[in-house]
Amino acid sequence: MGGDHAPAAIVEGAAAAAAAFGIDVILTGPSKLLRPLLSAQAPSAARDGSRPGQVRIISSEDSLAMDEGALASLRRPRSSAAIACQLVRRGQAQAVVSAGSTGGTVATARLRLRSLPGLLRPGLDVALPTAPKPTLLVDAGAIADPRPEMMVQFAQLGVAYAQVAYGLEDPRVGLLTIGAEPMKGNKLTRRAHELLAAPPHGGLPIRFTGNIEGSDLLAGQVDVVVTDGFTGNVALKTIEGAGSFATGLMRAALQGSQAARFGTLFQRRALRELAGQMDAETYGGAALLGLEGTIVIAHGDSKAKGITSACRLAADLARGRITERIRERLGPSHRAGHFLRRQ
Amino acid sequence: MGGDHAPAAIVEGAAAAAAAFGIDVILTGPSKLLRPLLSAQAPSAARDGSRPGQVRIISSEDSLAMDEGALASLRRPRSSAAIACQLVRRGQAQAVVSAGSTGGTVATARLRLRSLPGLLRPGLDVALPTAPKPTLLVDAGAIADPRPEMMVQFAQLGVAYAQVAYGLEDPRVGLLTIGAEPMKGNKLTRRAHELLAAPPHGGLPIRFTGNIEGSDLLAGQVDVVVTDGFTGNVALKTIEGAGSFATGLMRAALQGSQAARFGTLFQRRALRELAGQMDAETYGGAALLGLEGTIVIAHGDSKAKGITSACRLAADLARGRITERIRERLGPSHRAGHFLRRQ
Repeated sequence: MGGDHAPAAIVEGAAAAAAAFGIDVILTGPSKLLRPLLSAQAPSAARDGSRPGQVRIISSEDSLAMDEGALASLRRPRSSAAIACQLVRRGQAQAVVSAGSTGGTVATARLRLRSLPGLLRPGLDVALPTAPKPTLLVDAGAIADPRPEMMVQFAQLGVAYAQVAYGLEDPRVGLLTIGAEPMKGNKLTRRAHELLAAPPHGGLPIRFTGNIEGSDLLAGQVDVVVTDGFTGNVALKTIEGAGSFATGLMRAALQGSQAARFGTLFQRRALRELAGQMDAETYGGAALLGLEGTIVIAHGDSKAKGITSACRLAADLARGRITERIRERLGPSHRAGHFLRRQ
Repeated sequence: MGGDHAPAAIVEGAAAAAAAFGIDVILTGPSKLLRPLLSAQAPSAARDGSRPGQVRIISSEDSLAMDEGALASLRRPRSSAAIACQLVRRGQAQAVVSAGSTGGTVATARLRLRSLPGLLRPGLDVALPTAPKPTLLVDAGAIADPRPEMMVQFAQLGVAYAQVAYGLEDPRVGLLTIGAEPMKGNKLTRRAHELLAAPPHGGLPIRFTGNIEGSDLLAGQVDVVVTDGFTGNVALKTIEGAGSFATGLMRAALQGSQAARFGTLFQRRALRELAGQMDAETYGGAALLGLEGTIVIAHGDSKAKGITSACRLAADLARGRITERIRERLGPSHRAGHFLRRQ
């Protein structure tokens, strides 16, 4: 029930994910609203020839509004997001997809799902559109004032994601700061640099390649970018803003004169492909990792296509046993405690 | 002597600024290097018909290397940057322009020039390429871990800059954070929001319009964006990176097929204008404000055109009496002390 185009776009996107990728989907929300929307979906064949997934409805009468923040999760134990988390907690689902407000969804998930042993804080992982593989930014906004030890764990979350989703064996990890030298940055990043540069990392070793700057975020130099949730969220939204600014200038330039406009007649296909490359809906959304169950948070203005991508990402992460992978990377919980006491 | 293309591009750009805008320029550096470069400049007419400025050389044998940071300023009292600051301190110049490393230049300026009364820390102001007027981002990297009170003063610096450089009477000030509501953000921005929302601001009142997000940086909603130097530097470099990423995709799309390439024949002028709009060299550089004298730090890879813009910005700020304007905005120094004690 979350998102600007809920529930219609959610139902349509989820049904498409079930049909195309064989994903079993449970929709949570008022069944009298969802049932007719679901019946209206045309059946379509699975893309890979496998059996189509099932789509079921589990009714929940309440939902979080888009402008409700973290506290709403406490007041709304029967919201569609809370019910979805409970299904994961009871083992009836492996992942949650929501296009609701990030703050409300993160808080609901943290309240309803257990953290993995030894984890200090879950982190929000977002895939940046670098080629040939996306670069993961973590934390993109789950916690604004983390401790440096949490940032080492964010690296572990990102490494597990890159291994499962992109098949990378030993992903490169960079720290987002304001200069290449280890001592560049603020107090938080200088300490995080020390911890990342000096194993043990509380669990499996991390391939830390050093500091990166804002200008490197889309350069594909690293596979995982570690940052605090405040800086990560500012950087992510700055990329969005700068991208639409640049394409706006480009559109104005290409439409600005008759001659230039005439030229675009020969570029229709190229410009359509370009728009696709810059379309955030194709990346699937942000994954909240570190809990007993995966949460994928799609962009609030996602249409059906974005919801389908988010369902596919959630299924890929769950099928790749991301939770077990993270548990392994974080190490036994007493080790994590030991790691923290040593700092 | 600072910058990737020093000293040739610096001499050329400075001579062009003198000729075109009637700016008197003093070059600091080894005279046996600078003299022949200066003699080789073709004399050109002033653009507005006024008398051309004079270009003189004051010799300094030492200089800061591009990879030298803040500490170099202590070791190098006779560097070209240090000599330039001393000229300002002695009243023989009104502003310094450097394409040297930001860290080294900021540290040199802070060491050689007095702070304005009541100022806690100078801030680096950078103009973002919004239309119709640029948006000023401050602090763009002078201090990575400021106190919230410093951020209120950064707002004062930005307001003075916008008044002098863009003729705005009452510039709108926004705070860069991760949500529109006052309580959104990290500890630092929440406290800065409180201080900005509750006058007195230690001096003249600030027109604070609330929080903005990374996606709003280029939207032109505000005239001044206040942030800490860490976040500001990450955001600035992220804009640079995302801009060149988007134009790279665009270039690839337009060159990707014969038909699309044919279309660009009709767009030469539009694409040339677009490249100009996205060219950082036209914005002139970052201004370090809050000291007794203005410092303009051009991009390290500035060519002559970028140096000319930087000289013009420095002259505009000095002619608009930016220092006096800031002094007035900060209020009498005992008031600033009072303001701080009250927090």
